[in-house]
Amino acid sequence: MLELFHDIRDELKAVENGLREVVQTNSQLLTETSTHLLNAGGKRLRPALVLFSAKFQKFELAKVLPLAVALELIHMASLVHDDVVDASLTRRGKPTVKAIWGNGISTHIGSYLFAKSLMLIAEYKDIPLISEVLSDTSVKMCEGEIQQISFSFDIHQSLKNYFYRIKRKTALLIAASAQLGAVACGAPRQIHLPLRRYGYNIGMAFQITDDILDMVAEQSKLGKPIGGDLRQGIITLPLIYALACCEKRDRLVELVCKVDKSEDEVKEALDLVRNCGAIDRSFEIARKFILKAKAELKALPDIPTRVTLSMAADFVGIRKF
Amino acid sequence: MLELFHDIRDELKAVENGLREVVQTNSQLLTETSTHLLNAGGKRLRPALVLFSAKFQKFELAKVLPLAVALELIHMASLVHDDVVDASLTRRGKPTVKAIWGNGISTHIGSYLFAKSLMLIAEYKDIPLISEVLSDTSVKMCEGEIQQISFSFDIHQSLKNYFYRIKRKTALLIAASAQLGAVACGAPRQIHLPLRRYGYNIGMAFQITDDILDMVAEQSKLGKPIGGDLRQGIITLPLIYALACCEKRDRLVELVCKVDKSEDEVKEALDLVRNCGAIDRSFEIARKFILKAKAELKALPDIPTRVTLSMAADFVGIRKF
Repeated sequence: MLELFHDIRDELKAVENGLREVVQTNSQLLTETSTHLLNAGGKRLRPALVLFSAKFQKFELAKVLPLAVALELIHMASLVHDDVVDASLTRRGKPTVKAIWGNGISTHIGSYLFAKSLMLIAEYKDIPLISEVLSDTSVKMCEGEIQQISFSFDIHQSLKNYFYRIKRKTALLIAASAQLGAVACGAPRQIHLPLRRYGYNIGMAFQITDDILDMVAEQSKLGKPIGGDLRQGIITLPLIYALACCEKRDRLVELVCKVDKSEDEVKEALDLVRNCGAIDRSFEIARKFILKAKAELKALPDIPTRVTLSMAADFVGIRKF
Repeated sequence: MLELFHDIRDELKAVENGLREVVQTNSQLLTETSTHLLNAGGKRLRPALVLFSAKFQKFELAKVLPLAVALELIHMASLVHDDVVDASLTRRGKPTVKAIWGNGISTHIGSYLFAKSLMLIAEYKDIPLISEVLSDTSVKMCEGEIQQISFSFDIHQSLKNYFYRIKRKTALLIAASAQLGAVACGAPRQIHLPLRRYGYNIGMAFQITDDILDMVAEQSKLGKPIGGDLRQGIITLPLIYALACCEKRDRLVELVCKVDKSEDEVKEALDLVRNCGAIDRSFEIARKFILKAKAELKALPDIPTRVTLSMAADFVGIRKF
């Protein structure tokens, strides 16, 4: 668990138990795959945000627990589905469901986890905003993934395309997490809307940092081989900048567009990106989103959780995993 | 359109338009894949059942249209996800999304269509039963698919395993369609529960007939190569019977368990199943479900739609496609 989550450690344990209960079935394969996913861990950022968000209203664990579990299930479902496309066979240092059980199982397990989240969300029938936000977010998450595939190996994509994509892929679910904890406890708009914008901005920073780490991290810390995006032809922010400013642009284009790159070619492309200032420029953008996130917090009541959320925003920008 | 659906042709046109509207996006790939799916057609059985079901209460198209569209979207999503597992490259006589665009796109398009259905279902916030039934059904559909994969090539599975699977894979969504049209128009339990049981029983008969057709149909009518289940190691009702009564059981077991069968081996196995009475016994079971479905109708008001539903049950048992 992240040190940042110390104040909500008991609640997060309840989320963990909730996740394990949800995937208890009489199907051995289902239990096995789901348990594998749970054991692979993860930061549990989305449930943590749900819990923190609820602290800005009258906090009641029973009111937010199903939601916190549902948000993590939606996230897990999207990871399993991504793995169908993704060439990487490890995630968080462990083999993916796809690597062990294949594409068919991955597709159905992802849908199963997602459908389970719907059962939890159905409990909030008195607060229609929750299912409205989450169904809209789910549609947009798929749009982001599909845009990513259709733009792969396309070096002509713009910053706008990139931001459109990461908003949908990542930021909207984090925004929903930060918003809906408060909503579930009955918070008014002047509370849950700044929380949503906070979540959106750290979500954008989170994905940009992820995309940077895929180019500069140590594999042991990242839990998967670096350069994964490059291998799959996914053009992320550092690469968009590098394509604009790299002195050896022609060579970079050639490497990026090659479908089956050798390890040496991946390394060469990564070096070109790293040595032209593109990484620093990308970090700069991430920092801007973090500042925006922290600015949103000013509209919220001055409770200790507000300080924690401010530190969480900083963490997103400096994390190495 | 099926002749049976003549009385609701205008409403089904509205469903068709609704489906096309739902998939209009500014993503070319999304629109292209979704339109491909819509143009591939289908019987639109689930929307038709929603519409018929609503006729047992005060029918209002506006009240059932989003639901009818949502039910077809859930069905389409499950077909696209099945294709990730399925070796068949055609469905309804057309290439599958997977065959043209690959597994990654199929996974995300399926999830996209499913998420779109949630947006429509969210409109029924005043009738929580609708989202409860559909989230429960969605979970169980995944359980059915996963059970199918984990039991593939397993000749020791029982009739109970088979019925467990087809209930989840097929019957529950048809049951939900037959139930929820009436629910959306405000029908009481004594109306929507018999409709649900009617739907469940025709759903079971529908899947059994499907499984029989996969062994006896003409390829041109089926829209996909026959013997698909055998090739994938899916043990369906005719095969369970054949494994119990075929004189050349050892040879049949050998053929069924072989992972990569030649065309001659598929044909030999199909002949063994066809020539031992297993097909007739399977049809007999389908007929029993149809009789049960028709018996449920007796509890409903004697309106013309009741006759149509009775004919629809008969159609399920005699269809050739």
